[in-house]
Order: sequence, then structure tokens, then C-alpha cells
Amino acid sequence: MSLKGNAIIGQSGGPTIVINSSLVGAIQAAYDVDEIQRFYGAIHGMDGLLNEQLCDLFREDPDIVEAMRYVPSAGLGTSRIKPHDKDLERAMEVFKAHNVRYFFYIGGDDSQLACHKVSELAKTSDWEMHVVGIPKTIDNNLVVTDCSPGFGSAARYAATCCQYVGRDAEAFGTLEVVEIMGRNEGWLTGAASAARPAPDAPPHLVYLPEVKVTREQLISDVKEKYDEHGYCVIAVSEGFAFEGEDRVTTSEQVDEFGHCRLGGVAQWLSDVIEEGVGVRSRHDKLGNLQRCFAATASQVDLDQAYAVGQNAVHWAVEGQTDIMVTIERENDDPYQWECGATSLTTVAGASKAVPREWINEAGNDVTEEFVTYCKPLMTGRACELDTGFTSFPRFRKQQVGCELCTYEREK
Amino acid sequence: MSLKGNAIIGQSGGPTIVINSSLVGAIQAAYDVDEIQRFYGAIHGMDGLLNEQLCDLFREDPDIVEAMRYVPSAGLGTSRIKPHDKDLERAMEVFKAHNVRYFFYIGGDDSQLACHKVSELAKTSDWEMHVVGIPKTIDNNLVVTDCSPGFGSAARYAATCCQYVGRDAEAFGTLEVVEIMGRNEGWLTGAASAARPAPDAPPHLVYLPEVKVTREQLISDVKEKYDEHGYCVIAVSEGFAFEGEDRVTTSEQVDEFGHCRLGGVAQWLSDVIEEGVGVRSRHDKLGNLQRCFAATASQVDLDQAYAVGQNAVHWAVEGQTDIMVTIERENDDPYQWECGATSLTTVAGASKAVPREWINEAGNDVTEEFVTYCKPLMTGRACELDTGFTSFPRFRKQQVGCELCTYEREK
Repeated sequence: MSLKGNAIIGQSGGPTIVINSSLVGAIQAAYDVDEIQRFYGAIHGMDGLLNEQLCDLFREDPDIVEAMRYVPSAGLGTSRIKPHDKDLERAMEVFKAHNVRYFFYIGGDDSQLACHKVSELAKTSDWEMHVVGIPKTIDNNLVVTDCSPGFGSAARYAATCCQYVGRDAEAFGTLEVVEIMGRNEGWLTGAASAARPAPDAPPHLVYLPEVKVTREQLISDVKEKYDEHGYCVIAVSEGFAFEGEDRVTTSEQVDEFGHCRLGGVAQWLSDVIEEGVGVRSRHDKLGNLQRCFAATASQVDLDQAYAVGQNAVHWAVEGQTDIMVTIERENDDPYQWECGATSLTTVAGASKAVPREWINEAGNDVTEEFVTYCKPLMTGRACELDTGFTSFPRFRKQQVGCELCTYEREK
Repeated sequence: MSLKGNAIIGQSGGPTIVINSSLVGAIQAAYDVDEIQRFYGAIHGMDGLLNEQLCDLFREDPDIVEAMRYVPSAGLGTSRIKPHDKDLERAMEVFKAHNVRYFFYIGGDDSQLACHKVSELAKTSDWEMHVVGIPKTIDNNLVVTDCSPGFGSAARYAATCCQYVGRDAEAFGTLEVVEIMGRNEGWLTGAASAARPAPDAPPHLVYLPEVKVTREQLISDVKEKYDEHGYCVIAVSEGFAFEGEDRVTTSEQVDEFGHCRLGGVAQWLSDVIEEGVGVRSRHDKLGNLQRCFAATASQVDLDQAYAVGQNAVHWAVEGQTDIMVTIERENDDPYQWECGATSLTTVAGASKAVPREWINEAGNDVTEEFVTYCKPLMTGRACELDTGFTSFPRFRKQQVGCELCTYEREK
């Protein structure tokens, strides 16, 4: 028997270039679905859910909804809240107060864990609802799924930057360190190498957090490549550390998920190699632009992000729950994929490192297997920037009336 | 009477997205000119000139030459050498040894000064030659010329970044500081504001080095904009300092022009406002990508860069010398321009700040006059990135035999 009621969707964690594509995929799928009577957006993710800051997505202009598909960053706003037990109980109150029978949450492994907890609580609360996680992370570290929407576009930007900044370093004959996101996993850093258009193209060295090297080895690597090319570009993950040494961090602060703020590796490593090699070194930290520079979006990534959003809605109304939508790879070349599903327990709080065998023995580059895996995810699209600057569209976010008392969250 | 002989061209200082367009403009103009018998490229600018590292540009594949028009960074290599008297004498020896009657140098105000000194020395050395400077700098601080090739494309990248990263900051409701190049002048930082597609679009505050503000005022500005928009993007020049305080630098080192390495303002200012406003603040330093991210090149900038290269050759063979080619603005809207020329003495070592009246009274934004000036220079072009990654073309740089002894340069 079909479950009728309202739905809530939220965006969580670090935004990506394509997270709005997933949102739009879900909204447009829900247009034609009788089971979903009202479709609410949680403003600033979990924060909005707990505080009843909900907007009516069916009242958004359909043209704006369609346009939002290509707008980077989280159009509903996002948050990094890691819900504790009281938060989950509050979430259930909100679901009941607004007759919410469907919950969709777009995020990474921490967000899928939150999603799973909601699903579990719903079961014990005698409130029938279907909960579906939608994958998203530029870090590409979600398990089970072949890749995570958001990764391909960030990878394309990182690779593009390495090509360009390599030309700049070549003109001076300097060393250049490029710092790339990805936390504990080196997918994004490796991607910068995967797109190398020629064997001598930058980056010449790529250090992923999965394999540690010594100071001596890295300096020796850089010397060798500098002698060979007359310049050298080194791509390094923000989570990089030398063998036997701690990671570099810019701050003692941690976010609500308990993660420290990484970053600052490029500047530090640049100083290390300038001294060690005796050649001037510069550095660039790709920073937040990796997850929002839409001009270099990947078309495959945009398509996959949209598809996981659409399928989340379709499968939820068909009765599936406690699942995350996945991407399944059918073929490498030509690249073929389709959506699948996995139980939330398989992905919640888990993360996938780059396999050791996809990194070369010296630990300073990725292998052909990595390239075969990664390259199709970075396929280009026509740039939207050719006619000058136009204003990004925005949701109106017309808010729904609150039914509950104010929520004072315990930190 | 026409002067027949060989020519040397060099690229100097920080590369830009369009400096190769100027080089290609000069090469292609020289194809049809009888006066220039051989056209040499100085490899790594002044460095190559002094060390007789010259390549024969007429032996480059014309298809590669044409393709180089759209390749960022200095295809011949560049250097930051500031020539002293002995260097200039050496340069004259090289000119004489290779029968060089034409010298073209693509660079900023320091490079135009070097160019002028060469011209003066040629006159007193009884060696007739024509010396023409070709303008280039992302800083846009050259005097007399309406703008400097390289600026428009860097400006377009900086403005694009502010739009994108603004969406990311909005999704979290944070503060965001974006650090933009430009040394002592705020042209590039102001440009980030000039391209704002809507009054409420980021950056909401723009601080140029030309006007100093106090800590209290800046924090009060940020508070006000944050309250208004729920997030706030602050674009700040690398040369920024508070009223009565020193500039932030990352290093004690200076380059050969005596300039210290700027940078680090964003991180520092981000900490200042996070504490002062009490809202989380992040930062992004646009870094070297500002001068090489060709996907956001400006078509006007590419056209102007090409034209100044072409005219340098035309005017040199017509007998003009000791000049720099300039851009003259004919009309703002529709934007019309043509090339002109000015004596090197007028531009050598001089720099142009943003006029006080083009910055608002509070010192936190640019005025309509600035926007009218700046916007046409940032006109888009179709992106070249739509079909995936292709290898950049390269000059072969087939070297010409040396005629002189090795040169040991005094530092």
C-alpha cells in the first residue's frame, strides 16, 4: 500500500558544484508523484529541520528550480550539525507535526549516519516513514558507491588548476606546491594527476595521505623531476604528513563532526622543498573554490548528481527505506553507469581510501588503474561563463508555519 | 631610410593569461616585414638576453605560433631580473653580435624602465636600433595607457571566484575573505566588485590599498553587511593594511626589483574579523591562478594583448623608438578602443593608483566610475575547456649559436 504524506529534503556538510543538481532531481521527480503531497526543504540542513525552518519547494517557480540545477553550492543552505539523541527525537516531532513520511538527506558519510539514525528511530517510534540518503562529497570517500557526486567536478577544477599553474611555474623554472582537499583520502589529489594530458605535464609528483614518504625521499623526488623538466609541480593532499610526523593544521579548532580544520600544508611543504632542493618554491591552496567553481563542472558529475536525486524519490515512494542511492559502473570505456541502492548501514560513518595498488610503489603518483577509474568522472561540459556575469538564481524559500515550540539545542 | 637587421623579443615579470597573445601578435606581424630578417626570442627574458639564450621564432611551426595565442603564461619563459649598468652593456654586446636592430620587451613598469635604459644606451653606443615596450601587467598600474593587457582576464577570474565562493559562504552563513593580487594598487580587487551582477551579490565589501580604514571601521562594516545578507564576502588586496599599521607579508625576502613577497592578508584578516564579529570566517587566496586561469580569459584582453604586439612591430619598422604601445579608450559603451604610443620616459618606473574619487567615501567599495571603466575590460569569451584536457602547445625554442663568451652576472 502506498504511503501518502509530506517529504523533507536537506543538504548537509560541505557544498559541491553539483549538490543542487541532486536537489533539483528530487524536486522534479516529486512533481509527478501522488504520494508526496508537500515537499519541504530544510533550510540549512539539520539546523533547519530541528528548528522547523522549512520552505515549500512545490511553490518555487519551476523555471528557477530548473535553473538551480547548474548553480554551485547548497541552495537551501547547509550545516555541519552532527545530531545527538535529543536532536533525533526533535526531528521525529517535526516529522509528525508536518505529517512527513519521506526524508531525503544529501551528504557524505557522517550525514548518511544521521540519516540511518533517523530511519532507526522512526521504526521504534511507530511512525512509518521512508528514509533515503543521497550521496554527495568532493572527497569521493563514500563506500559501496562507485563514486560520489561532487567529486568529478572538484577533480576537474583541481586538475585544470594544476595544468595552468604548471605553465606559470615553467615560465619561471620554479617549484610549485598545490594543496588539494580530500581530508584523509587522496582521491581528489590523485585526480589532478589522472587528467595529465601528456607524460611530462604537471603535476609531476602527487602525494596522497594513504602512503607516507620520508622528507629525504620527497626532496629527492623533487630534485629528480626538477632536473628533468626545469620546473616541478607537486600536488599534495591537505591531509599529507611525512612518515613519522604529525599533520599540519592551521587551527586547533574542530567542527561538530570532531574533524580538525586541515590546511596549510602547501605553504609549509613549499618552505621545506625550497630549502631542501635549493630552488625557489611557490604554493597555491585551491581552497573553497574546489567545491564551487562551476565553470569547470563535469557533465557526468552533473548527470549523476541529478540521477541520484531522482531515484531517491522514485525508490522511496516505491517503498524502499534506510537506503542510500549509489552509482554503479557498468563499463570503463566507453563509460557507462546506472544508479543502484545500498543499505544505509553499509555506508554510514564509513570511508573508502584509495587502494594501495592504485598508488605507485614510490608513493609519488597514481597508477593506470586509478586513471582508468577517475578520468571518465571528469568529463567536461560547455562553460556557462561565455556571455558575461549574470546573477545566480535563488530559491524564494517561502517558509512554512511552525507547529512546535522553539528548540534549544544542547551543544 | 628603413633599418634592416634582426629583432629580439622577451617576456618579463609575472606571466599573464594573455602575454603570449602579445608575443604571437609580434611574431605574426614580423612575418610580413622585410626589415626584420631574423626574429629571436630571449629565453627567460632578460636572463636569456644576457646569456645569449636566444631561439629563432621564424623557425617555429606557424600553427603552433597561432595556437600559442590562447595559452596562458610566458611561452618563452620569464625572469624578474632588474638589469644594472653592466647588464645593459652586455645587452648591447649581444645586440651587436647578432645584428639586432629591433628590441621588444613585454612587461610592466620596471620592465619598461629596463627597456628605456636599453634605448638610451643604444643611442650613446652608436648602434642604431629601435626599442619598443609592450605593456603587460595584471596589476593594471601602468600609466598613460588606458589599461594593461593581462588585467582584464585576471579581473575576470577574480570576479568569478568571488561569485562562486560567495555562494559557498552563503550556504553556511559565514564570513569569507578573498585575497586578490595587485601589490600597491587596488585595480584587481576593485574589479571583483565591478562585475557584481546584482546589488546584493558578493563581494559585499572591497578594500583597496589606496584608502586605509581602521580596524573598528572594518569590523563595523562586516557586521552591518552580515546582518543584512546573512553572510558576507570581503575582497581585499594583498597590499592591504589597516590605518596606522604595517602590511602583512609572508616572508622577509625581496625579489630583484626590491619588492617584498606579499600575501597572507586573507588568513590574518579572517582571524581578525572572526574574533571581532563573532561569526566563523574562512579565507581564500587566489594566488598564482589569477594570472594563468585561461578558462575565464577576457576576449577584449586577448584582442588588446595581440594588438599591442602587432603594433609594436609595425611602429618599430616605421622608425619609432623609445616608445611603449598603449591602449586608448574611444568610448565606454559600446566599448571602443585603439592602440596609441607614448614615450618610454612617461611610463618607466611609474605606477597608477586607483583615483580616490573612484573609491567610495567609506573606503569599502568602488564607485560607478570605476565600474564603467572596468567592466568592458572583463568581457567573456567562449571557454576552451569543453572537450576535456588537451596538452598545451609549446614553442620548440631551437637555440641560436652563441657568439660571445659566457656572462657572469654580478648580483
